[in-house]
Amino acid sequence: MINRTDILPANLHKIFYPKSIAVVGTIKVKRTVPGDIFLNILQTEFQGIIYPVSPGERSISGVKTYKYVVDVPDEVDLAVIVFPSSVCNLALEQCGQKGIRSVIIISAGFREVGKKGLEKENELTRIAEKYGISFIGPNCLGVINTDPVCRLNASFARSFPVEGSIAFLSQSGALCTAVLDYAQAKNIGFSKFVSFGNKADISEIELLYYLRDDPKTKVILMYLEEITDGRRLMEAAKEVIETSHKPVLILKSGRTEEGANAAASHTGSLAGKDEICDAAFKQAGIIRCSNIEEMFNIAIAFVYQPFPKSNRIAIVTNAGGPGVLTTDATIKEGLQLAAFSENTTLLLKRSLPTTANIKNPVDVIGDARADRYGAAISAVLKDDNVDGIFVILTPQSMTDIESIANEVSRSAANSVKPVYTSFMGQADVAEGIKILEYNNIPHYILPESMCKPFKTVYDFNNFIATQATVPLFSKPPANLTGKNLVEKAAVKTNRYLNEIESTDILEAYELPVTKKRIAISAEEAATISVETGFPVVMKILSHDIIHKSDPGGVILNIGSEKEAKNAFNNIIENVHKNMPEAKIEGVQVTKQIQNGREVILGIKKDPSFGPVIMFGLGGIFVELFRDISFRIAPVDKKTAYEMIKEIRSSGLLTGMRGTIPRDIEAVANAIVKLSSLAMDCPQIKELDINPLIVLEQGAGCIIADTKIILE
Amino acid sequence: MINRTDILPANLHKIFYPKSIAVVGTIKVKRTVPGDIFLNILQTEFQGIIYPVSPGERSISGVKTYKYVVDVPDEVDLAVIVFPSSVCNLALEQCGQKGIRSVIIISAGFREVGKKGLEKENELTRIAEKYGISFIGPNCLGVINTDPVCRLNASFARSFPVEGSIAFLSQSGALCTAVLDYAQAKNIGFSKFVSFGNKADISEIELLYYLRDDPKTKVILMYLEEITDGRRLMEAAKEVIETSHKPVLILKSGRTEEGANAAASHTGSLAGKDEICDAAFKQAGIIRCSNIEEMFNIAIAFVYQPFPKSNRIAIVTNAGGPGVLTTDATIKEGLQLAAFSENTTLLLKRSLPTTANIKNPVDVIGDARADRYGAAISAVLKDDNVDGIFVILTPQSMTDIESIANEVSRSAANSVKPVYTSFMGQADVAEGIKILEYNNIPHYILPESMCKPFKTVYDFNNFIATQATVPLFSKPPANLTGKNLVEKAAVKTNRYLNEIESTDILEAYELPVTKKRIAISAEEAATISVETGFPVVMKILSHDIIHKSDPGGVILNIGSEKEAKNAFNNIIENVHKNMPEAKIEGVQVTKQIQNGREVILGIKKDPSFGPVIMFGLGGIFVELFRDISFRIAPVDKKTAYEMIKEIRSSGLLTGMRGTIPRDIEAVANAIVKLSSLAMDCPQIKELDINPLIVLEQGAGCIIADTKIILE
Repeated sequence: MINRTDILPANLHKIFYPKSIAVVGTIKVKRTVPGDIFLNILQTEFQGIIYPVSPGERSISGVKTYKYVVDVPDEVDLAVIVFPSSVCNLALEQCGQKGIRSVIIISAGFREVGKKGLEKENELTRIAEKYGISFIGPNCLGVINTDPVCRLNASFARSFPVEGSIAFLSQSGALCTAVLDYAQAKNIGFSKFVSFGNKADISEIELLYYLRDDPKTKVILMYLEEITDGRRLMEAAKEVIETSHKPVLILKSGRTEEGANAAASHTGSLAGKDEICDAAFKQAGIIRCSNIEEMFNIAIAFVYQPFPKSNRIAIVTNAGGPGVLTTDATIKEGLQLAAFSENTTLLLKRSLPTTANIKNPVDVIGDARADRYGAAISAVLKDDNVDGIFVILTPQSMTDIESIANEVSRSAANSVKPVYTSFMGQADVAEGIKILEYNNIPHYILPESMCKPFKTVYDFNNFIATQATVPLFSKPPANLTGKNLVEKAAVKTNRYLNEIESTDILEAYELPVTKKRIAISAEEAATISVETGFPVVMKILSHDIIHKSDPGGVILNIGSEKEAKNAFNNIIENVHKNMPEAKIEGVQVTKQIQNGREVILGIKKDPSFGPVIMFGLGGIFVELFRDISFRIAPVDKKTAYEMIKEIRSSGLLTGMRGTIPRDIEAVANAIVKLSSLAMDCPQIKELDINPLIVLEQGAGCIIADTKIILE
Repeated sequence: MINRTDILPANLHKIFYPKSIAVVGTIKVKRTVPGDIFLNILQTEFQGIIYPVSPGERSISGVKTYKYVVDVPDEVDLAVIVFPSSVCNLALEQCGQKGIRSVIIISAGFREVGKKGLEKENELTRIAEKYGISFIGPNCLGVINTDPVCRLNASFARSFPVEGSIAFLSQSGALCTAVLDYAQAKNIGFSKFVSFGNKADISEIELLYYLRDDPKTKVILMYLEEITDGRRLMEAAKEVIETSHKPVLILKSGRTEEGANAAASHTGSLAGKDEICDAAFKQAGIIRCSNIEEMFNIAIAFVYQPFPKSNRIAIVTNAGGPGVLTTDATIKEGLQLAAFSENTTLLLKRSLPTTANIKNPVDVIGDARADRYGAAISAVLKDDNVDGIFVILTPQSMTDIESIANEVSRSAANSVKPVYTSFMGQADVAEGIKILEYNNIPHYILPESMCKPFKTVYDFNNFIATQATVPLFSKPPANLTGKNLVEKAAVKTNRYLNEIESTDILEAYELPVTKKRIAISAEEAATISVETGFPVVMKILSHDIIHKSDPGGVILNIGSEKEAKNAFNNIIENVHKNMPEAKIEGVQVTKQIQNGREVILGIKKDPSFGPVIMFGLGGIFVELFRDISFRIAPVDKKTAYEMIKEIRSSGLLTGMRGTIPRDIEAVANAIVKLSSLAMDCPQIKELDINPLIVLEQGAGCIIADTKIILE
């Protein structure tokens, strides 16, 4: 068996830069996938040799065909298989025999059609392993490489894109066709374009690493429907960003599929997958986009213009209204409006008419022509307080649109500061926009759309400066005692651990559990209460009860011996009445903590990303405002602090407006310890510390209740 | 003096439908405003007669000119004044003498350039009043009427739009040119197009009423920078919606200008103007748009397609990825995915290939041609569970885009259900999109963009059904006692009323104030405390102190006589130390209410909308989450309930998850009474009841603290 990891880079390179291609299973009929693939490669002026393999034809479009791929007399770098799924395995087997190691399988009819298809797909993987083949697909649109030394269009896309610096990867083939069409109209160029379909062999991960090393690619864009291995994706993206400074933009669909498995326990119902995906992407430095338009809006900002030093924007416009709208959007996006230096103000005053507005946003007035735009732009570009410029144009009768477009392009070319534009309208401004696009000036139909891309580039630049070299995960050493306890509990059939089991596990991880004692009679409850010291809290203990309050299984503020006895009896009575089938193991007595601030900590196992740590403030804040922070585990102390500060209600812990400053360090420590637990014990499906009571600064925190659910 | 209200409709009608026009101050030079206006009217094939008035010319473009407007030998319906601002008054005077009652003043150089300009503008208004003239402008782009019986282009816009049902009004002339250009490229037609500039005479309000009665207009769009009289705008919009069912869409800029007057008191700092504008628009049924694209996205949905019965969407697509993205957006927008009937499922199964997805979203698969789209659309259109259809197309090699566009158009034409489309991409799909536009099928570049317009139309339809006939405001009868108290307080120089004054006013409006007693010595404080019953609260009483806690002027939980004495002394000491300049009037003693839920009520006087009522839950919720509801006063009981239910934390009042259900009725009553106070007393700039303590259902609520600031 060949080690496929070693040969992967070489195989991948031949997928993008083959010197010879066999199109295996092509036919003469146009407007069919097998027919179009061959024609696309042929008509795009591929710089190597194409061998059509077609059992039923002698030639196609004047090119000699071969019956089988093994019949091709020369060496073949890349095979593109377009046979029906039923014979793809045979075709791949022959590719292996022929010594081809790089394959694209376009054909559909595999995993996506059900169990039988999956079997066929697994067969492909087996053959690939046997021969050391790397393949893209099946069920994909194909691969495009615009590099003029190759010019490969091994796809059934309708058009070949112009050359550019954007790489686009997509799990959906159909979306690719829309993207190509969209980009074509906007003159957006691509370096590589890959539809990877079912990713039975090569996935987005391997492609990420390849594109990192591709000198033609500056930005990597991706459409994903399913994240198979979230951690590997995070690690790959982080490494790509760190080592190459190439941004990774992902459009991930399926945002609302949460609620599919309405989770039994509290934390479960909170941890919507989509929020976790958001958190994971942020941790890795991945830029998540909400739609195709936004994705390309951001991509062109990355590709065409320098990174800004900071976030102070100057707006130059010939119309007040759009200037105001853009100011609103600039502030809302978290950018700043630059305050001009005295010198700039003087320069503007000198070069603009008196009716112009020389403050930011600069209004050069409706009758402005190219010279006036040029003067204003050059004045603000020189200002040290300005980090980037938004140029807005409305087509008024005096506006020389094309000259202004040229003027803006000239100014931007001579500057190290980013210049974005919005020539508003569509018909009249079309020629001007073409000039901007030709000169690599990002152009946006709406002036407001300039803000998000600017902010994204600015944030990415900060990420590179501050976080890129910090390791994504630093795995803590394993805690064998804790691990063992979980393993022991997992052996039992119960999925829900009881209070005692949970407490022991948390204790092993040095999490601040409270001393808990169990009473099995009213008398015992009273005695324990006296020993513990009033006030106390009593809670039902039962494997069968998750939400202890629901059947009346929790009583707070028990202040005397007599109250303690009554409380015990009431709890037993309530549970008997409301959940008669529940097996009662006793009633647990703990000291009631007063004047603490309640927070929630949790672990949730995500199908894509594995163990995730959750933090929020009190049940109500989480439930009503979804004020929660997530991180993919493991979480170090710095990240734990970030999680605490990220929630909007963190002021209640840090001591805003006269509230008591709480022991945040204790909370951060608890988060880190919980993260160790999560990493050690993959059996944990959900863990819910609710509440963790946080005392004043220096006084620590105490776990009041815990739920652990195993897988 | 002529009553201008009576003649306004006739005057306005002549602005849009003149039989003869004098262009007053035109010149021969092209590419200038005075020159272009005349040419635009001439070249657009105006259906009446044009008289150029130009002191320096004998003819322009072959048309005989007149030196002054009074020289025109025939009757003139409309004068368009393009003279420099310095002589506009003379021109308007002559128009009056000539008997012209309808005028558009294009010229700039008025209010927008400062005080001298404002004087000139006031002079215009005086002349208009003298002669009973109604005029649009000054400082505007002009007026367009596409109605073929008139064809008026009295503007310096570069192009004349196609005829349509959308009326567009704009305070910014420059934005108009961008909008016209944008709409032209999308084949969007207009009925009337008005740039009203400084609105010295005719404002958006008069235009709203005119457009309501204009049979050519179905939807009214507006760009506003400044709302002069918010209440009149609300009333006008509401009336237009109620009587004509024409939606009013407004793009209002200046969203972030809040914070300009960082308000002294608590409520002030919360009541950002923009949130108030949001609330006001919602009350009146106005649809607020965030940008031009969104505005037209919504407008075409209104104009082209029927209103949906409910919000259950069927998606038909030839690509899975965009189907998933659109499903996400549909759910996020608050729409539902339709569940198909058995019959529909059967129909789809019969007419689609086995690989197709016959569940919603329906995937007709990449090789679908028009027949398959047609079958799927007709099947789901027939389903009673479907209220509207989103059709998505990606341009794949087999896709017959134009035929599909025709098929969709045919299906939509035969249905009473709305059909929206997104043919993704741009270049390849262009012809298909044109067919859709021609057939009045709303088309959106992004499939996700179909959701917001659908939801907006659906909500508007609900507004008409449920709220349109409910009066916008029902003014409560005045409370003379309360009014007098405020007037008396206003006579004093102090802007901040003290606790006693505030309490008396609230009491007059039957708001639930607590019995408050003032102590001026530690002994007296102790005596009052005993009489009141422990625990008590003590608060400093001083006109000079707004935030009583800041200098240590509030002590809670005072439980004994001894504690009471200490508390008094501590408060006095704290205030002496921290605010030595404050004049202390005593210390106020009240019973401490326990176990209540704290809410905030307030009045804020908005410069555009007048008195506004505010409601939120406790300081932290308001400060951290801005969880507040606003309504323009007066507020009736039904609206008060809406305000309570609208905040995200309302569950804490209604009794969610084991919390105590609170006396919401008492809160609603308090809101209504506060609204009466607000309406009676325009002197109040801010009033802040913080907190109002809400007891259990049936037990009422109690005001714990109040601040009133007069203007």
